[in-house]
Amino acid sequence: MNVEPIGIIRTPFRAKDSCPIQPLYAGDAVGMVEVFEEFSAGLKDIEHFTHLFLIYAFDRAGAVELVRPTFLDDEPHGVFASRHPCRPNGIGLSVVELIDRSHHILTVRGIDVLDETPLLDIKPYIHRFDAIDDANDGWVAGLELRDKPAGRD
Amino acid sequence: MNVEPIGIIRTPFRAKDSCPIQPLYAGDAVGMVEVFEEFSAGLKDIEHFTHLFLIYAFDRAGAVELVRPTFLDDEPHGVFASRHPCRPNGIGLSVVELIDRSHHILTVRGIDVLDETPLLDIKPYIHRFDAIDDANDGWVAGLELRDKPAGRD
Repeated sequence: MNVEPIGIIRTPFRAKDSCPIQPLYAGDAVGMVEVFEEFSAGLKDIEHFTHLFLIYAFDRAGAVELVRPTFLDDEPHGVFASRHPCRPNGIGLSVVELIDRSHHILTVRGIDVLDETPLLDIKPYIHRFDAIDDANDGWVAGLELRDKPAGRD
Repeated sequence: MNVEPIGIIRTPFRAKDSCPIQPLYAGDAVGMVEVFEEFSAGLKDIEHFTHLFLIYAFDRAGAVELVRPTFLDDEPHGVFASRHPCRPNGIGLSVVELIDRSHHILTVRGIDVLDETPLLDIKPYIHRFDAIDDANDGWVAGLELRDKPAGRD
């Protein structure tokens, strides 16, 4: 299946080693999601939502590694048990807070992707469907969040 | 960007009009996620998580409509403000509960996709990153969940 960008995500993160690895790390980092004009009609009513899923391409990821250490600890984990970018289909997923919409430009907070990341889709984060109170943290439970090790892609 | 299936999702839902439209509708529907053997190493440690994001192809969606009514009400909404399958890149996203893993086969609860849906990716749902307590329900707030109208794809 072929997928094509519907827009571009602009963030303060130009290099891999300055890019947060999950939205919680990103904190208050603000970015702009520019949806191409030809798709802008599809944004109707998006301003009703406080949070969105962004689906995007990991366009600068390294080679696929099915089992590897991640940014969170030094143990090898399966790529489907992590959010690491080096995965068979280079599709990324982040939840961001929507703080403004100006026609086809969305301003979002808590962005964690590299500048000029190709946007593939936007879906609303709907509390009643997506906030799962009884979900756990899996192997991430109890890990101290740490800075990304230098040089790790 | 080209994406290829990494597996297949098997569910009780053979026809569009018997398929739930969000996992909450699906309730206890159980499905099997079969990851192709060549990718099964990537499942290491996935059994630590209670919930997963499934990313899949809407392989039987109709033509793209940027603004259209959805399954939830009769008002037209932008496709990026809804989870409707008829979208520019036919990528679907669902949260499911992981109830068993047997090598490369995952048994999941709360599945809401059609049988034999092509699987593109699996990511762990991590409570500390993904359960956003202060997210809202957007335009979905207060709507009664209803059965999918007959004949609506």
